[in-house]
Amino acid sequence: MNDTICALATAPGGALGIIRVSGSKAFAAVSSLCSVRCDAVAPNTIHFTRIVERDAVSTHQEAIDEVLVSVFRAPHSYTSEDSVEISCHGSRFILNKVLELLVQNGCRMALPGEFTQRAYLNGKMDLSQAEAVADLIASTNKATHQMALSQLRGHFSSELSQLREQLLKLTSLLELELDFSDHEDLEFADRTELLTLARTIDSHIARLAHSFETGQALKQGIPVAIVGKTNVGKSTLLNRLLKDDRAIVSDIHGTTRDTIEDTIDIQGIAFRFIDTAGIRQTTDQVEKIGINRTYAAIEKARIVLWMIDAQPTSEELQEIQERCKDKSLIIIQNKIDKQSVPSVKDLSTHLSPLTPHLLSISAKYGEGIDALEQAIYQTADIPTLSDSDFIVTNARHYDALNRAHLSLTNVLNGLDQNLPGDLLAEDLRDVISILAEITGGQITPQETLNTIFSSFCVGK
Amino acid sequence: MNDTICALATAPGGALGIIRVSGSKAFAAVSSLCSVRCDAVAPNTIHFTRIVERDAVSTHQEAIDEVLVSVFRAPHSYTSEDSVEISCHGSRFILNKVLELLVQNGCRMALPGEFTQRAYLNGKMDLSQAEAVADLIASTNKATHQMALSQLRGHFSSELSQLREQLLKLTSLLELELDFSDHEDLEFADRTELLTLARTIDSHIARLAHSFETGQALKQGIPVAIVGKTNVGKSTLLNRLLKDDRAIVSDIHGTTRDTIEDTIDIQGIAFRFIDTAGIRQTTDQVEKIGINRTYAAIEKARIVLWMIDAQPTSEELQEIQERCKDKSLIIIQNKIDKQSVPSVKDLSTHLSPLTPHLLSISAKYGEGIDALEQAIYQTADIPTLSDSDFIVTNARHYDALNRAHLSLTNVLNGLDQNLPGDLLAEDLRDVISILAEITGGQITPQETLNTIFSSFCVGK
Repeated sequence: MNDTICALATAPGGALGIIRVSGSKAFAAVSSLCSVRCDAVAPNTIHFTRIVERDAVSTHQEAIDEVLVSVFRAPHSYTSEDSVEISCHGSRFILNKVLELLVQNGCRMALPGEFTQRAYLNGKMDLSQAEAVADLIASTNKATHQMALSQLRGHFSSELSQLREQLLKLTSLLELELDFSDHEDLEFADRTELLTLARTIDSHIARLAHSFETGQALKQGIPVAIVGKTNVGKSTLLNRLLKDDRAIVSDIHGTTRDTIEDTIDIQGIAFRFIDTAGIRQTTDQVEKIGINRTYAAIEKARIVLWMIDAQPTSEELQEIQERCKDKSLIIIQNKIDKQSVPSVKDLSTHLSPLTPHLLSISAKYGEGIDALEQAIYQTADIPTLSDSDFIVTNARHYDALNRAHLSLTNVLNGLDQNLPGDLLAEDLRDVISILAEITGGQITPQETLNTIFSSFCVGK
Repeated sequence: MNDTICALATAPGGALGIIRVSGSKAFAAVSSLCSVRCDAVAPNTIHFTRIVERDAVSTHQEAIDEVLVSVFRAPHSYTSEDSVEISCHGSRFILNKVLELLVQNGCRMALPGEFTQRAYLNGKMDLSQAEAVADLIASTNKATHQMALSQLRGHFSSELSQLREQLLKLTSLLELELDFSDHEDLEFADRTELLTLARTIDSHIARLAHSFETGQALKQGIPVAIVGKTNVGKSTLLNRLLKDDRAIVSDIHGTTRDTIEDTIDIQGIAFRFIDTAGIRQTTDQVEKIGINRTYAAIEKARIVLWMIDAQPTSEELQEIQERCKDKSLIIIQNKIDKQSVPSVKDLSTHLSPLTPHLLSISAKYGEGIDALEQAIYQTADIPTLSDSDFIVTNARHYDALNRAHLSLTNVLNGLDQNLPGDLLAEDLRDVISILAEITGGQITPQETLNTIFSSFCVGK
């Protein structure tokens, strides 16, 4: 931990590139490249200077860049160590050169997430907060952003610490019971209180574990399938929905668009559209294959948008309802702009009361799209995100919560079966220790840390 | 000019994203989003704070990010205006949101290069220095970096200011001549001095204009063609050369590689390899087409690497030499690792003394590659880059230098032909005014500024 690390903290290719340096030699390394005496200047100050490469033999100095150097003194920095940020012109050559010079002056290239790992190891944040940093950077919409920021700000940590206090109380009550184990009449009075407390804790843990499903859907985007016959306007609708979801940054750069092309943001929630391209190509020719692909798309979806432009037969209605019975179904009549399209008659006699959505739109001209987005959002039935309603998004946390729940079930059964307190106390210690894994309150094996931080980007 | 601009100054996708704000309302706009009173804190200081979105109706505050805010007070900032940099977590959602909040609080999104344009308009740098900023950001090797940094640091500006002084001296000597135009004997003495001074100035301008060819080659990479028969090892050689040119940043990210795949860096100079893929596929089948494509590749090159693995016929030698007569030719015998390959006999009787390079290599095992790189570098015959030897890289500057040279030729001819001084003075004023276009010393039309700065990235 005593070595000094450096890395590019911004993506290559911008106007600016920020190089981060952290560790006991950070000040010395940076000072050797410029005229700023990092150890002498006031902390949290910025200095304009020139980075130079010194030739050891000829004492010739070659200018590399005109930069801003920001100095942070331990423990008041991200990592809690002496740290420097160098704001360079964003040239590949310059950034490489400055990193190279830092390495020549006693730094080493940081591993992914190593700055945040140091922040954790130095007690700046717990492990779940450190994990939230990576989620926050990856967040692309309001929901994922709120979940990550809430975790970073310690809301999960304080829920866990509340659980821990209750578990310790439960343990001490059990230990009290052990002390008085000769008095048989005392035992039963205590166990009622114990059982109530244990159930409260367990339902809290179960609620957190249960929230993971929502967390995952929000993180990856709620899966939506657009199904319907060829030429009903599926891709026109998708393009229309995508067009309404334009962001400032992507407008400028026009680069990140590709990877999120099939995800749209409705009121801060990501909806991920399942590719149903196959259906378009084969429905007409080989009806069977088309239908099968449609069913496969429906299978993966949570919400199904079924598009029609003519009155469906009651057989069609029945089949699609059968297939969608555990999905949220929205039936959309498209092409209302065309006079030749007959208006679809009331479908309510064919539809179950659980499928209340029949919407008329013109994907081409945008009519009815606002109402459709509103319907999609409502259908998704996302709980309101607030600080008090923490949503678990991390598979590692989910796994720990499930194991904690399992051990606590043993305790609950044991209390029911009047098992002796010392056996139950052992299970309780398990629960406490499992929950502590989440925040890293226990000693966390290096292997686990490596797994966690290797998914970070370099420079964070 | 009084409005306040904001933009993302880093590429999207990193651990950090820096948002720049500049203008008279920069402090007010940023302060309205966080707890830092930008106008009250000391300049050049950094502040940890939380960006919040305030709901005007409910006074509810929603946290957006935990950030560092850097405050720069006019005129001590890049633009010379009040400026703030906000260092956010590099999430697309966060960066969009912060920009959106800034726009809601009186800023507007900056145009490409607008921060640098303000630096120029506020007298922080001249126009050629401003153009150097874009070149510096785009620089990918030592040569382009040095040229851009030299220009940014004002070396070109001071050469131009030196030329301007000499031109003003020449003008005043001509005006002196006009005052004494009655004394015919005085005139001739002055004209000798005038002619010498004018020639000195002209050769300086001509040298600068001439350097543009080198500047262009260095900027775009010196074009190199690898030619030779199928299976002689052309792509093995190219891969070998590429492998030796690995940069730290691209090692980490592995993303920028694609676009520069055929450019290698030898001792800080970029060599651009012309695609000769076509030759490989057709040489054997349709000899004629193959040869023609080879010739097309040679045509575009400045250096030709001709690869052989067997003794060439004297006809082959003659033809290739004929085609390469205004190119630098390096003949490379590959596959020296194979025992079955016969050693190539001395070619000197067939080669002109201007083709001194015959190198033996093993592209597969890397033998002889260092010597080959050395030979390529020497063959390129790049002048040593030093501060005193400025190289013009900008087409706009090249154009101005050419026009200045043309006007000065008129002056020289006029002096030769004993034209009257007032006519010559007019041409001289032209030269001065043309050179002033480069640094923007004259009033520069907005249209020209738009053209210059629109090629910048946003945020610079």
